[in-house]
Amino acid sequence: MVEFTVTILGCGSAKPSLRHHTSSQIVTRLGKLYMIDCGEGTQMQLMKYGFHPGQLGNIFISHAHGDHCLGLVGLLSSLSLDKRTTDINLHVPSDFVDILKAQIDFFVTHTEFDIRIHPIECQEPTLIFSDQHFDVTAFPLEHRVPCYGFLFREKAGSRHIIPECIQQYGISRTEIERIRGGGDFTAADGQIIPNEKLTTPPDPVRSYAYLSDTRPVMQYADLLRGVDLLYHDATYCEGDEELACKYDHSTASQAAEFAKVCGAGKLLLGHFSSRYGGEDWLLERALGHFPRIVLANEGLTVKITDKTDTGPVFVEWRR
Amino acid sequence: MVEFTVTILGCGSAKPSLRHHTSSQIVTRLGKLYMIDCGEGTQMQLMKYGFHPGQLGNIFISHAHGDHCLGLVGLLSSLSLDKRTTDINLHVPSDFVDILKAQIDFFVTHTEFDIRIHPIECQEPTLIFSDQHFDVTAFPLEHRVPCYGFLFREKAGSRHIIPECIQQYGISRTEIERIRGGGDFTAADGQIIPNEKLTTPPDPVRSYAYLSDTRPVMQYADLLRGVDLLYHDATYCEGDEELACKYDHSTASQAAEFAKVCGAGKLLLGHFSSRYGGEDWLLERALGHFPRIVLANEGLTVKITDKTDTGPVFVEWRR
Repeated sequence: MVEFTVTILGCGSAKPSLRHHTSSQIVTRLGKLYMIDCGEGTQMQLMKYGFHPGQLGNIFISHAHGDHCLGLVGLLSSLSLDKRTTDINLHVPSDFVDILKAQIDFFVTHTEFDIRIHPIECQEPTLIFSDQHFDVTAFPLEHRVPCYGFLFREKAGSRHIIPECIQQYGISRTEIERIRGGGDFTAADGQIIPNEKLTTPPDPVRSYAYLSDTRPVMQYADLLRGVDLLYHDATYCEGDEELACKYDHSTASQAAEFAKVCGAGKLLLGHFSSRYGGEDWLLERALGHFPRIVLANEGLTVKITDKTDTGPVFVEWRR
Repeated sequence: MVEFTVTILGCGSAKPSLRHHTSSQIVTRLGKLYMIDCGEGTQMQLMKYGFHPGQLGNIFISHAHGDHCLGLVGLLSSLSLDKRTTDINLHVPSDFVDILKAQIDFFVTHTEFDIRIHPIECQEPTLIFSDQHFDVTAFPLEHRVPCYGFLFREKAGSRHIIPECIQQYGISRTEIERIRGGGDFTAADGQIIPNEKLTTPPDPVRSYAYLSDTRPVMQYADLLRGVDLLYHDATYCEGDEELACKYDHSTASQAAEFAKVCGAGKLLLGHFSSRYGGEDWLLERALGHFPRIVLANEGLTVKITDKTDTGPVFVEWRR
């Protein structure tokens, strides 16, 4: 199964603390990088964890609160100083476009690449991006300002050809591609070998959903049904539901309940408040609602495996 | 002599690297904090080195390049989230005012304090700020955009009363203040004791100058004559004068030459380019021009002593 990971660059809420940077993460598939949110200091976090900013092609911003986007202008400025020539695409809520353009015009000068801004404005889940790796769907969350969740769904892969069949039937390279696409094979003696005898099914299509910042949004249980990894706002701890509701956030336990209702494979909790001095207590309470949870942390990489994998969440550290 | 220090929060040039943050530093006198420049991530650096952002009252921005000011909006936003109620003063070049206001209006909401913006625009050295600790003079540097140096000059202190005299002549508390201001004392028997017999002179007035980013500016040798500590742009190494000139910066050796011409007490080199992979070579060459140099580094605090102190530069680390 090809590499599909998410790495946390920052998972603190509102303002940075000594424990956590503000929100940003990197989704990778087969070495291609996608950024979600870009809080202050994200470009330093990218370097710290060994990512090359030059490899970024698409940045998705959930909403225009500073802790999710104040690192964007500095990052773009550094890309310009690096003499980047490849265009970069920014997918941002439409209310962020004017001030973003004003900042770029002022701070990001002498670029040899285009900064393409793609405004997001939708009331229903909407496909906003597609390439050879992913379809990305945006859907409005419940927060103080226009705020969007993102669902990264892998493109369906090809069927896998059974290596022994290639030699057995003398299948050419050109034919292999056709067979991976589902075609049968006509052997030299005219015999037709059906595709099912030559191939095994493609890898399951995996998906990753990012929901921050938001109140619980049960209306998306169908959209996110069976998502393999769910990142969810866990600003507050169980017991602080009133505060969570007042400030348009969620408790870790509400996030866990949502993961259960969606039938998510695994849950990644983030956007932590500094008020609790740590996240152990959030986790303990949330585990009462859903078993497969990992706490986000700077430098943590989570491999996105198929949801049928009910083992422990596989993580590794980049530091 | 009262505490008067400068602490480096960032001393890298153009874009952050794994070695250095972008420009920012804290000047302190008797516990009061002043910030000069505020590159991206400055609020995290403040926390890392144990400063409380709430104690900041005045921030001086040299120029509107991102590496000197992109941390300002995030810092202000955090001050607002901290429920600050004391006004804050931003001293910024006038060409930065419009975009700064636009960013503040968008990102820094629900403040319970005023953000007072004081535009700097001058062709000659001009006093831009004065309080009980300092007179701050701005002077235009030679850079691609309007850019100002800052000279922090301590307010003259009072004379020191000789402790033994207080008991000998029965001097009251009220009289002490008057005598520290220079007054004579009339004893109980009518005898007039001249001030010189009761006091020693005030501490020498110390000064700190910040010059970044700039080409060498020999025209300020008189203004900065005898400055106790000089922070100077040292983006390039001796031998790269052409590059330094082209991009409106200085070499470390040009900075050292300037320190010598000014008769500076000590020189603090900063705004390092990542091109050299380190600063040892810059220092070695610069020491050929001026003997008392320290390389800036994140977390380094330099105590500003009187220029008659020709010993080694006294520094300490906050980490």
